Amino acid sequence: MSLDAILARIDAELETSLDRLMTFLRIPSISTDPAYKADCQSAADWLVAELASLGVEAEARPTPGHPMVVGHVGEGSPHVLFYGHYDVQPVDPLNLWNTPPFEPVIQDTPNGKVIRGRGTADDKGQLMTFVEACRAWKAVTGEWPCRVTFLFEGEEETGSPSLIPFLEANKEELSQPDIALICDTSRFDKDTPAIVTSLRGLVGEGIVITGPDRDLHSGYYGGAAINPARVLARIIAALHDDEGRVTVPGFYDGVPELTDEIRAQWDALGFDAEDFLAAVGLSVPAGETGRSVLEQVWSRPTCEVNGMSSGYTGDGFKTVLPSQASAKISFRLVGTQDPLAIRESFRKMVTEMLPADCKVAFHDHSASPASVMSTKNPVFEAARTALSDEWPREAAFIGGGGSIPIAGHFKEILGLDSMLIGFGLDDDALHSPNEKYDLESFHKGTRSWARVLDAISR
Amino acid sequence: MSLDAILARIDAELETSLDRLMTFLRIPSISTDPAYKADCQSAADWLVAELASLGVEAEARPTPGHPMVVGHVGEGSPHVLFYGHYDVQPVDPLNLWNTPPFEPVIQDTPNGKVIRGRGTADDKGQLMTFVEACRAWKAVTGEWPCRVTFLFEGEEETGSPSLIPFLEANKEELSQPDIALICDTSRFDKDTPAIVTSLRGLVGEGIVITGPDRDLHSGYYGGAAINPARVLARIIAALHDDEGRVTVPGFYDGVPELTDEIRAQWDALGFDAEDFLAAVGLSVPAGETGRSVLEQVWSRPTCEVNGMSSGYTGDGFKTVLPSQASAKISFRLVGTQDPLAIRESFRKMVTEMLPADCKVAFHDHSASPASVMSTKNPVFEAARTALSDEWPREAAFIGGGGSIPIAGHFKEILGLDSMLIGFGLDDDALHSPNEKYDLESFHKGTRSWARVLDAISR
Repeated sequence: MSLDAILARIDAELETSLDRLMTFLRIPSISTDPAYKADCQSAADWLVAELASLGVEAEARPTPGHPMVVGHVGEGSPHVLFYGHYDVQPVDPLNLWNTPPFEPVIQDTPNGKVIRGRGTADDKGQLMTFVEACRAWKAVTGEWPCRVTFLFEGEEETGSPSLIPFLEANKEELSQPDIALICDTSRFDKDTPAIVTSLRGLVGEGIVITGPDRDLHSGYYGGAAINPARVLARIIAALHDDEGRVTVPGFYDGVPELTDEIRAQWDALGFDAEDFLAAVGLSVPAGETGRSVLEQVWSRPTCEVNGMSSGYTGDGFKTVLPSQASAKISFRLVGTQDPLAIRESFRKMVTEMLPADCKVAFHDHSASPASVMSTKNPVFEAARTALSDEWPREAAFIGGGGSIPIAGHFKEILGLDSMLIGFGLDDDALHSPNEKYDLESFHKGTRSWARVLDAISR
Repeated sequence: MSLDAILARIDAELETSLDRLMTFLRIPSISTDPAYKADCQSAADWLVAELASLGVEAEARPTPGHPMVVGHVGEGSPHVLFYGHYDVQPVDPLNLWNTPPFEPVIQDTPNGKVIRGRGTADDKGQLMTFVEACRAWKAVTGEWPCRVTFLFEGEEETGSPSLIPFLEANKEELSQPDIALICDTSRFDKDTPAIVTSLRGLVGEGIVITGPDRDLHSGYYGGAAINPARVLARIIAALHDDEGRVTVPGFYDGVPELTDEIRAQWDALGFDAEDFLAAVGLSVPAGETGRSVLEQVWSRPTCEVNGMSSGYTGDGFKTVLPSQASAKISFRLVGTQDPLAIRESFRKMVTEMLPADCKVAFHDHSASPASVMSTKNPVFEAARTALSDEWPREAAFIGGGGSIPIAGHFKEILGLDSMLIGFGLDDDALHSPNEKYDLESFHKGTRSWARVLDAISR
């Protein structure tokens, strides 16, 4: 049976697969920082060459931001669109990294070998599990399991500003596939693979509050002049009530309660909330009162402060009364919450809280609704069985706390359902210093894709 | 009469006096930043040479921080100790400066010529008014008006950490003078010179709140993990009530009400609160309800946020759930408020507000009580008359909103009263970009000191 031969090939070629991944990881493709624009182009070009080596007709197509890599290959059914992203998060604070973020290394840890570096788990390592599965398939059979369209973007970490126009401009070409495969999620735990069937949406807002028209001496003006840092603190403090609920008017419109069926599935997972929190030094769930931790991170909307800055933040002390205070605030959305309505309501609330003499400027960073997948397409059950064959425990349909707006855009613009399969773990330190991807995630992830491709293309 | 000759000499030598000041201003003696340690030493050495050129026996004495410049000269009564500081504030945000901060220039403005650069008003320009008055006196008379001790420190902008030990170690030497003269304050307005008879104290606190043990992905953990930026915002928001009063328990212990006498004096000044606020882009007093602006900045205690930082603050957006949030918070004190008791009460309040899983670290930056001068010493009235002779309007005894802890230390450790005379203006942009000192402040300030020295040494 050729699947066994393909899996054996994946095992035998692990070292050379890793070498390719390491090369990819060394490209510092930080999409949010204009200083790395050329590196994003390099990452796109590298992927084009990689696909070309597999016989895929691929190209890096320009956008107003970073390029989209598009490739087509193969015949037969189903026609899958595989999506991944080649951009990565910034690396600050750099001093907290134990190894240079763009010099990936394989390290031994008490939990096994890991690949350490920026982008290992999010998303280069994950993306390459699919590419390497295709490479093994092609090497063993000389063919492709089915028709495959590749779509790799370079702006996922900045809210995908070029994606919607690109999908719209290339709708005819990209709406041909039957289903999208997205590899940017995690296993449920070390033993349990997962297919994510819901994702939270995201609204990102930058706000800058200005009081006095210059920084002042807190001795000469303190007491009489409005302090924008205090104003910002009051606004942030007012965004949640004592029960941990978000106070933005209308925020909970469109937030569904869990169905009994999904609640039962999640209860059956045996999720250990204590371990989940303990892994990051915490012990008490900090979200809405009366909600389980799984609900808090999978099915409840949130409001978080992602950044905050005002006045003097260097060494020592400066008795300045700052002219400005700024924050980056994001909302995770569920169900049918409307990102644009929430943005508007948030801005109205902030504006109404401003005292005399203060101005506010808003900067929008993203706005995407939540995605809830229909699992009726038979590929979901086929993939669940295939994943269960590779891992110790049976695969589960789970919720996802993160935001992969692309799934919503695929549905809205291309009419495509998405199946989200990924192999990360909760301790991968995504977006943080010392990001890693377990060697097992990479190896068995590659094997998993071979099994899934085999199952769905039969 | 030799005073006239001395004043004429000051007028004639203005250009060379300015040249000396410019040289002094070019030394970037930022005390809070270790990168400028050698520059602080250079500024101290420059002052020693300057005093030596006047025949003063002076030296830069080492401390655990930056050196103290001490010099003695002259004979007769009274014996005055003149204090100034040679260190300056940091210059960030550098992009808001219109000229390089350490390349001082003389500029024409609608209000007359100004000297522009860091330290022009705070305190190098002010310090040099006294030195230049002495230089003119010596040049014309060949003598000193009275016995003078010079004390210049280099850590005023960082809370003077070495000052108390230095005063204690050199108590015998430095407690000889009859009164201290401090030149680090402002005129009341362009026409009205002032002697500051009260100063607010200062407690500076750095706080760092830690939640999760690393930065987290706000999608995977948002909702369940405590966000220290939100915790910090709640704490800062809770530091004031709706009337603008500080809520730290016991904070108002020792805060006196204005006497009718002082209130009458201040009312007579014709202070224009609207102009004062409009000068920095504001229109509404933001302090305690029911207090005049002069009370808010001269006689009421405050709590200000001087800096705040958490998470991602660069360009673009990063959906991080930060591990830490930090703030620099200061309190201005009046009357007999106890800085150490307030620090302790603040720390207790913050600690009690921390939710589960959060830790806080405190860093103390300064703790000095308010100073209230006794004006009974006849030098006060003599100086007031002398200043009135130089300027268009009569000199006033006023309050000061800033903190010059040195006055308190002189009283406590050396038993010395202080007389605070300075020539700055409210729009000097102390601690801010584009700091300036009016050429008139420098010129007539120098003339003022000649008059004051003449009046008090008669």
